[in-house]
Amino acid sequence: MTDNENLDPTMQAVHDSMLDGLGQLADYFGFNRVIGQLYAALILSPEPLSLDDMVNSLGKSKASVSMNMRTMEHLGIVREVWVRDTRKKYYEAETDMWKILTNVMGSRELRDIDRALDVLQHNIEQLREKMPDLGDEEKTLAKHYIDRIDQLSDFFKFARMVLTSILKYGATFDMTELIEQNGGDD
Amino acid sequence: MTDNENLDPTMQAVHDSMLDGLGQLADYFGFNRVIGQLYAALILSPEPLSLDDMVNSLGKSKASVSMNMRTMEHLGIVREVWVRDTRKKYYEAETDMWKILTNVMGSRELRDIDRALDVLQHNIEQLREKMPDLGDEEKTLAKHYIDRIDQLSDFFKFARMVLTSILKYGATFDMTELIEQNGGDD
Repeated sequence: MTDNENLDPTMQAVHDSMLDGLGQLADYFGFNRVIGQLYAALILSPEPLSLDDMVNSLGKSKASVSMNMRTMEHLGIVREVWVRDTRKKYYEAETDMWKILTNVMGSRELRDIDRALDVLQHNIEQLREKMPDLGDEEKTLAKHYIDRIDQLSDFFKFARMVLTSILKYGATFDMTELIEQNGGDD
Repeated sequence: MTDNENLDPTMQAVHDSMLDGLGQLADYFGFNRVIGQLYAALILSPEPLSLDDMVNSLGKSKASVSMNMRTMEHLGIVREVWVRDTRKKYYEAETDMWKILTNVMGSRELRDIDRALDVLQHNIEQLREKMPDLGDEEKTLAKHYIDRIDQLSDFFKFARMVLTSILKYGATFDMTELIEQNGGDD
């Protein structure tokens, strides 16, 4: 079920370019490069792929393919599908980009923003508690710390709000329609 | 001008927590960890810092501090300021988070999205040109490739539109006000 044997050279080049490009993109967003490559191999294949197919297609170890596929399954980027007359596991890609965005952001970006906000809030509280014990000079510096940390905190609250709105609003409309309305094809 | 000598332990802990936290955040977004640490040191200092001050504060080499400060100056995250009676260079942080977002996104994220779109478009064109020469089976596969690449392309166009809108809209309002309206302080 690999789609790499005797493939027309142009199609092979496009296939490789997509694996390479999505690999770079995954790397850029802090994921393992193999995750992008696996996603590309899966969306370009008209049929579900087994772990062996992906090992052949990427030239990576079975351990690496299997570990990264587990991460992707957990993130809701790929899913296992049933294939008749085989005991091998087969997988297909989630192609609804909104689902992927929601799954990845929901499980990672929003959680990271919340963690950052917790640290900032904790630091502000510590400074406020300590304030009465400080000398005049340190009090001035502590107030400066609080102002600056507050400012960062506002920014993260805003970022959380933007992300939440995108996810909430995004699920409700047709992406292609919106792009056309906005002249996205220029 | 370092603010680390004889500092109250709570304030020192907050100082270190901020350097550590923004360092992690920078790392997470694909920047050098030192960039986050330098930004934290600069926003927490009530006065501009020299390269030597930052070397002391971070415990990093002068080469690393100097290289990362150049990157930050280039990105518009820090700026050189004039300090009376010294030939040393002093720096302060840009604290307008919108400016930082616009500078970083404008110079990096949008450019990366455009590059990804170019690659996708190039791949689609190559497949369309090759199409007449392909056998029936490969033609079907090529059409499948085009559909899937088109779908990714739509997603990147949408992402570009969202980023552009955030940057355009974001510059025009008061962030704090918006957060308060949206109950960001819960």
